[in-house]
Amino acid sequence: MSLTLYSAFIPVAIRTLQNLSAVLAKGAAHCEARKIDPNAFLSARLYPDMFPLTRQVQIASDTVKGAAARLAGIEMPRYEDNETTFAELQTRLDKTVAFLQTIQPAQIDGKEDADIVLSFPTRTFEFKGQAYLTGWVLPNLYFHTTTAYNLLRHGGVELGKADYLGGA
Amino acid sequence: MSLTLYSAFIPVAIRTLQNLSAVLAKGAAHCEARKIDPNAFLSARLYPDMFPLTRQVQIASDTVKGAAARLAGIEMPRYEDNETTFAELQTRLDKTVAFLQTIQPAQIDGKEDADIVLSFPTRTFEFKGQAYLTGWVLPNLYFHTTTAYNLLRHGGVELGKADYLGGA
Repeated sequence: MSLTLYSAFIPVAIRTLQNLSAVLAKGAAHCEARKIDPNAFLSARLYPDMFPLTRQVQIASDTVKGAAARLAGIEMPRYEDNETTFAELQTRLDKTVAFLQTIQPAQIDGKEDADIVLSFPTRTFEFKGQAYLTGWVLPNLYFHTTTAYNLLRHGGVELGKADYLGGA
Repeated sequence: MSLTLYSAFIPVAIRTLQNLSAVLAKGAAHCEARKIDPNAFLSARLYPDMFPLTRQVQIASDTVKGAAARLAGIEMPRYEDNETTFAELQTRLDKTVAFLQTIQPAQIDGKEDADIVLSFPTRTFEFKGQAYLTGWVLPNLYFHTTTAYNLLRHGGVELGKADYLGGA
């Protein structure tokens, strides 16, 4: 078995989002058990100009659904970014995982040198497929899942590295 | 060009540690400019039973030097974990990068199915090479670099995603 673009990405992203969903479930249970308003966590930021927890989860989702669609050359699913509860964020992650599960290895493998263009309002980034995955998609995915974890951990939710890594 | 175990790991880890070093440099400059005791950041934690900034940086270093040595089947460099300043942490990262730069693709490529055993005082983890890289090494590397970034950001250091991603 050789490492491929698919195997370095799709199963890894699925597992990472499932771990994040389990981390959010612990956040929700913590709020329930201690009669804490879940919005205290969902709107929490590590600094006033950082994104709150809800947005961290949405961006983790967007990062991988965008990458899967761009690498496979297919239409990107659009989500409305209207989640307001832990449960809705978990549904968002479930939807993202279901989309990733539709991607077949043949749609992604061999795209190492494919041209990928990311257009933002103020800037455009151009990558080859491999550099896009290893230098943008994965670091961003882990940045936002770690920051979501850190926001819950910082607020006292009992989480450990095993929750982040999942089944390790 | 096809993705390989080497290309998914060594250049990525080098860049990630260099980005972390640049993030630490901004932390040091922030302290200098505002007459803040650097130890306020170096000992900062997001929660009392999480590791402080210094340890986050050490673990990022340990994760990749251990992985490079295990995958290549060579002796692991030992560092003393005695860093007490931003500059010493940057030196630690420089040493780690220099070690990673000695690794040749032929030492790592094809190790997807190699048996990797991680022994901790209370637990042993067994992996195949590919799962070790994609499910342990990279998520841990990004966890600790993101948490180091978050600790500085949480304390008011002016950082942005471009500092984390590096040259994007």
